[in-house]
Amino acid sequence: VITREQCAALDAVDPLAHFRRYFDLPEGLIYLDGNSLGALPVTTLGGLNDLVANEWGRSLIRGWRDHGWWELPVELGERIGRLVGAAPGQVAVGDSTSVNLFKVLVAALRLRPERRVLVSEAGNFPTDLYLASSAAELLGVELRLVERDPDQLRRALSDEVGAVLLTHVDYRSAAILDMAATTGMVHDAGALMVFDLCHSAGALPVELDATGVDFAVGCTYKYLNGGPGSPAFAYAAARHQASMRQPLTGWGGHARPFDFEPAYEAATGAARLSVGTPSVLSLAPLRSSLEIFERTSTSELRMKSLGLSELLIALLDELDPPGLELASPRAAAMRGSHLAYRCSDARALHAALEEREILGDLRPPDLLRLGIAPLYLRHVDIYDTAVAIAEILGA
Amino acid sequence: VITREQCAALDAVDPLAHFRRYFDLPEGLIYLDGNSLGALPVTTLGGLNDLVANEWGRSLIRGWRDHGWWELPVELGERIGRLVGAAPGQVAVGDSTSVNLFKVLVAALRLRPERRVLVSEAGNFPTDLYLASSAAELLGVELRLVERDPDQLRRALSDEVGAVLLTHVDYRSAAILDMAATTGMVHDAGALMVFDLCHSAGALPVELDATGVDFAVGCTYKYLNGGPGSPAFAYAAARHQASMRQPLTGWGGHARPFDFEPAYEAATGAARLSVGTPSVLSLAPLRSSLEIFERTSTSELRMKSLGLSELLIALLDELDPPGLELASPRAAAMRGSHLAYRCSDARALHAALEEREILGDLRPPDLLRLGIAPLYLRHVDIYDTAVAIAEILGA
Repeated sequence: VITREQCAALDAVDPLAHFRRYFDLPEGLIYLDGNSLGALPVTTLGGLNDLVANEWGRSLIRGWRDHGWWELPVELGERIGRLVGAAPGQVAVGDSTSVNLFKVLVAALRLRPERRVLVSEAGNFPTDLYLASSAAELLGVELRLVERDPDQLRRALSDEVGAVLLTHVDYRSAAILDMAATTGMVHDAGALMVFDLCHSAGALPVELDATGVDFAVGCTYKYLNGGPGSPAFAYAAARHQASMRQPLTGWGGHARPFDFEPAYEAATGAARLSVGTPSVLSLAPLRSSLEIFERTSTSELRMKSLGLSELLIALLDELDPPGLELASPRAAAMRGSHLAYRCSDARALHAALEEREILGDLRPPDLLRLGIAPLYLRHVDIYDTAVAIAEILGA
Repeated sequence: VITREQCAALDAVDPLAHFRRYFDLPEGLIYLDGNSLGALPVTTLGGLNDLVANEWGRSLIRGWRDHGWWELPVELGERIGRLVGAAPGQVAVGDSTSVNLFKVLVAALRLRPERRVLVSEAGNFPTDLYLASSAAELLGVELRLVERDPDQLRRALSDEVGAVLLTHVDYRSAAILDMAATTGMVHDAGALMVFDLCHSAGALPVELDATGVDFAVGCTYKYLNGGPGSPAFAYAAARHQASMRQPLTGWGGHARPFDFEPAYEAATGAARLSVGTPSVLSLAPLRSSLEIFERTSTSELRMKSLGLSELLIALLDELDPPGLELASPRAAAMRGSHLAYRCSDARALHAALEEREILGDLRPPDLLRLGIAPLYLRHVDIYDTAVAIAEILGA
């Protein structure tokens, strides 16, 4: 039987325990939805005040020249690159995940013009499917959907397939796709691999370069704590950059934006993934959140995330509340950084937890998602959550 | 001869003079580049602090439910709509101007599928041309460029032309296109009219509905004072909304985004112009800047802008500095809210003005642009600027 004291003892020896102090969390709240919207870093507000009052307020237009605003997409891209295994020059930050998906899908399909099929997974996050469908339509390509299963994917691959869009960590179950094996299979068929990293970045090690992924996108408002609707990122492998053509050819991606040339010529490096004027008020706060990540490593974060997740599974196995069933993979290696539990009245369970100041995430009709953000959750939070769930469900 | 005392007297009776107090301007600086990046409203910082510390920090994921974050694109769109003559339900805020141009150009061309030509102006702001070129290529449409001249435009119109993209106020000269006459001519040819309002919104009255414009885009970081890289807006006339299809089909534009349906179905109204998760940290500050506009009217702003512009022209005519030549239309009705002066060494003039704490905008090779933001400029600022220019050029 696991006790709260044992959990407190685990917190006392947790090498990442002090990271909780880098966040401004509401007193008494257990926050298990960092996989939807990350918590507020304590330095974000000061950084934003300086940006607004001093950089914008005092420098005005000179801010573009004096404060590195124009370079933010690439500066932040390099820093996010370190978290997803991308060498410098391949990641740019800006625009939403949806807009970035459009860029990289069109870019990927244009690199395989003779192949007229785009493959994705039927259960992908909806916005991924909406954008995939639109990109395919504009290019006259067919979108084919398969189940999230290596065998089904293998059968769907052929010399007709130009690109495959998959999500690394499933938003419902947290099931991980094997990035290296999947990319290898897609490459064996001559297609390009596009990964959505929304539920991966900042939560577990990702090796884009090492696994040979061609393009990727991800958001920064979940585990990366960039704030509500903070800008997304896009990755384009260096080997594709000279020949790729992304369709949102704004001046932000031009080789010489301030020369006001009438024809578009893409910048070298990740800057060619940028589009319009950088959204400075959304981008700059990411500096504050990424600094936190630079004091640890994705493998340390992964270790803590799995430790907490395994603890929650063990506690709920032990307490065994009626009607609750794990909907995430039981094997730690197959799971991202959240746990999904199936429960016939998930809505009531979610609401009852919120009444006890425990914030999870409801995924109708019957899933409760519990995000295990390793930077600010404690073992005692996990204990209290498990006990609350058991009490609510009358274990 | 106009004196500084006369200018101070004009300030004393200026009905908009007190609006300067709504801005946090650096002491001693004369800011003549509000047409590139607007000044900081005094309430922006407090609003942003509340958003970050309270809404994000305390509500966390509940912010989407409790603080109207998801509705910001449409809420702000309605408020911007009032400044550009758009009845509610036609404007959404979000993404960059470049991304919005892509949306509305593809949407417009798709409404005229049998017409295979997109017309724009050769001297348009470069990013407009880059995006027009990309949208045209994706749709297999030809992009034809004409000079910014009604006769040339008339000759370019035919039953091949599906849409025409023009900028209402030219970014160099500030020359205005007659919105009603141009739109009428384009409609007579059966094409759709798309206007870029980057140098119009917040500076002069615009009547999108009354003039029958079909689509428009504009930025919020110039006269609207939204901050560096603040989100742009897009307008789609209500009559097109049911049939239009914009290509960036993110969940932000879905009829039921939280139902997670596998197929895209566009929302009704302006929401269908939205794409990804709203960029809350960039959007919310616009509330502070738009509140200022809601205490006046675009016709009052226009009157003050023209008064200041006419004063600057009169002073520089009088002082007649050698080598300086007005490059904007002399007729007030033909000009937007900035003045361009040609000068062989514009770079040196711009730098010498900056040394005197007068910030203009250099447009190489030979243009000095002076932005006349009516909300925070005084008649004495205009006087001091004219005298400084004359001194620098040795009048």
